Amino acid sequence: MATASSETKPNSSEFMEFPYASPPVRDLMVELVSTVESRLGSQLLPCSLPPDVQRYRNESGTSQASLHVRSGIPSSPIDFILGSWLHSQLPTGAALSITSLSGYLNDSTDAPNFLIELIQSSATSAVFILDLPPRRDLILHPDYLNKFYEDTELDKRRQLLQKLPELRPYMSPALFIRCAVSPTAILTRAETNEAGGPARLEEIVRENISTVAREVLGIWLDHCVGCKTAIEDDERSCLRKRDQMFKRKIMEVDLASNFPRLFGRETADRVLGVLGAVFGL
Amino acid sequence: MATASSETKPNSSEFMEFPYASPPVRDLMVELVSTVESRLGSQLLPCSLPPDVQRYRNESGTSQASLHVRSGIPSSPIDFILGSWLHSQLPTGAALSITSLSGYLNDSTDAPNFLIELIQSSATSAVFILDLPPRRDLILHPDYLNKFYEDTELDKRRQLLQKLPELRPYMSPALFIRCAVSPTAILTRAETNEAGGPARLEEIVRENISTVAREVLGIWLDHCVGCKTAIEDDERSCLRKRDQMFKRKIMEVDLASNFPRLFGRETADRVLGVLGAVFGL
Repeated sequence: MATASSETKPNSSEFMEFPYASPPVRDLMVELVSTVESRLGSQLLPCSLPPDVQRYRNESGTSQASLHVRSGIPSSPIDFILGSWLHSQLPTGAALSITSLSGYLNDSTDAPNFLIELIQSSATSAVFILDLPPRRDLILHPDYLNKFYEDTELDKRRQLLQKLPELRPYMSPALFIRCAVSPTAILTRAETNEAGGPARLEEIVRENISTVAREVLGIWLDHCVGCKTAIEDDERSCLRKRDQMFKRKIMEVDLASNFPRLFGRETADRVLGVLGAVFGL
Repeated sequence: MATASSETKPNSSEFMEFPYASPPVRDLMVELVSTVESRLGSQLLPCSLPPDVQRYRNESGTSQASLHVRSGIPSSPIDFILGSWLHSQLPTGAALSITSLSGYLNDSTDAPNFLIELIQSSATSAVFILDLPPRRDLILHPDYLNKFYEDTELDKRRQLLQKLPELRPYMSPALFIRCAVSPTAILTRAETNEAGGPARLEEIVRENISTVAREVLGIWLDHCVGCKTAIEDDERSCLRKRDQMFKRKIMEVDLASNFPRLFGRETADRVLGVLGAVFGL
C-alpha cells in the first residue's frame, strides 16, 4: 500500500488543488478523496491518464478542468474511481464550478456505486448531488432495496438536510439522471442570497453537506465495496448490460452534451475519447 | 359496447357517487372513469366483486370505502381497471379522504400503467399523485424512456403544475413508491391554509389538477393502451416477474399496512383477499 500510494501521490496532489472551489468544498473533496485513497489505495492502480486529459482548458482559458482516474487492480471489486473538477467563466458573466467524485464497482458485485457532485453557479447558489446509484432494477429486486437503502437508513440523512430552510429539492432536467439515482438520493439546491449570503452557503457546505457526505461515503466503503453476493451467470450478463447502458447515458447526457461548447471540439474529443475507454465503451 | 355499458352501469354508478370527495374531486373522478369506460368499455368485463367488497366499512362506521374493478376481456391489452375511494374519520379529529383510479396492462404489451390518487387530509391540504408508472427498468431500456416519457412531453405537465406557489414536491415516505413511479411523475402537495383557504384548494383541483389529469389519461389511452411492441419470450418472463413484484409490493406497502387499522382484521382480510386475486397474487 505504501508503494501504491507513493507512486500516485504526484498525480493526486495536483488534482487535489481544486483551485476554483470554495474553501469548504475544497476541504470536503480533499477529505473524501483522501478517505477513498487510504481505504482503497492498495486496490487501486495509479492514475495513468495522459497529462493533457489530467488537466485541460479551452483556447481562451475561460474553461478549465481536471480529471483523475484510478482503476481497480484485477482482483478488486473496483472498476474505477473518478475525480473531476471543472471551472467555466460563462458568457453571462457568471462562473460555473463543478466538483465531483464517483466510485464504480465491477461485475464481481452488484452493490451500488458512489457519487457526489457539487455544482456552484454563484456565491449564494449551489446544487448538491449525493447518492449510491443502484445497479439493479429496484422493482425486480426488493431485497436489494432493503439491503442497501432501507437497512443503511440512508433516507435519514436526506431528511436531515431537507430540514434546512435554504435547501429545496433539486430535480435534474435530464429524465435519465432522475432514473439513475436511488430513492434516497440527496438532490438539493441551496439558495442563500436572501439571508446569510455567501458565508451561509459556505457554512452549509462545511457543517451540513460535509457531515452527510462523510457518512454516505462511509456507508459505501463499509457496506458496498467488497460486499459479497452470489451472482448467477444470466444475472451477471444483465448487470453488465445495465452498467454499460448507465455509463453510455452518463457520457451522453452529462458530458458529451456540454464538453464541445465548453472546451472546443478538439479538446472535447480528446477527453471524451479517453473517458470512453475508462468507461469501457 | 352498448351491452357492456348497460350491464355494468349499476355497478359503476354506485361507485361513482364519491360521497366524501369535494365537488371538484368528484367531478374529476367521474369524468376520468367515464372517459375510461367510454374508450375501453367494450374491452372490459363488468365488475364482479362481491357486494361487501364493492362497499365496506369498519364496525363503528368511522371508516368507509368502495372498490370497483373491471378486468379486461382475454383479447384486450388490459389486465384490469381499479377505482377506489376511502374515507376515514381519524382519532385526531381530522378526516382522510383518498380517491384513486389505476389502469394495469397485461403482458401482451410492456407499455406503462396509469395511476391517479388524490389524498385529502384537510380542507386546505392535499397530495396529488399522477403518473404512468413504467413496466421496464428505464436504465436498461432507454428507448422505452424516450418513447413513453420524452416523446410524450409528460414532464411539461409536471413543470406547469410546479409553477403554482401553493404546490410543493411530495416525496412518499415509502422508498418502494419512490422507485415505482416514472421520472415525470407528478407527486405534489398543495397547502392553501395561508392564502385562499378551502376555496383555493378546490380551484387548484378544478383548474390545474383536472386539466393535467385529463391530458395524462389521454396520453395513456392514446399511446400506451394498445401500443404494439414485439416482446421476446425471455423479456416477457422478466416483464411478468416485474409486474408481479410491483403488485405484491403495492399490496404490502399501500394497502396491507393500513387496512387492518382502518377496517378491523376481518374486513381487511376479506378485501385484501379479493384484491390479491384481482392482482393475480
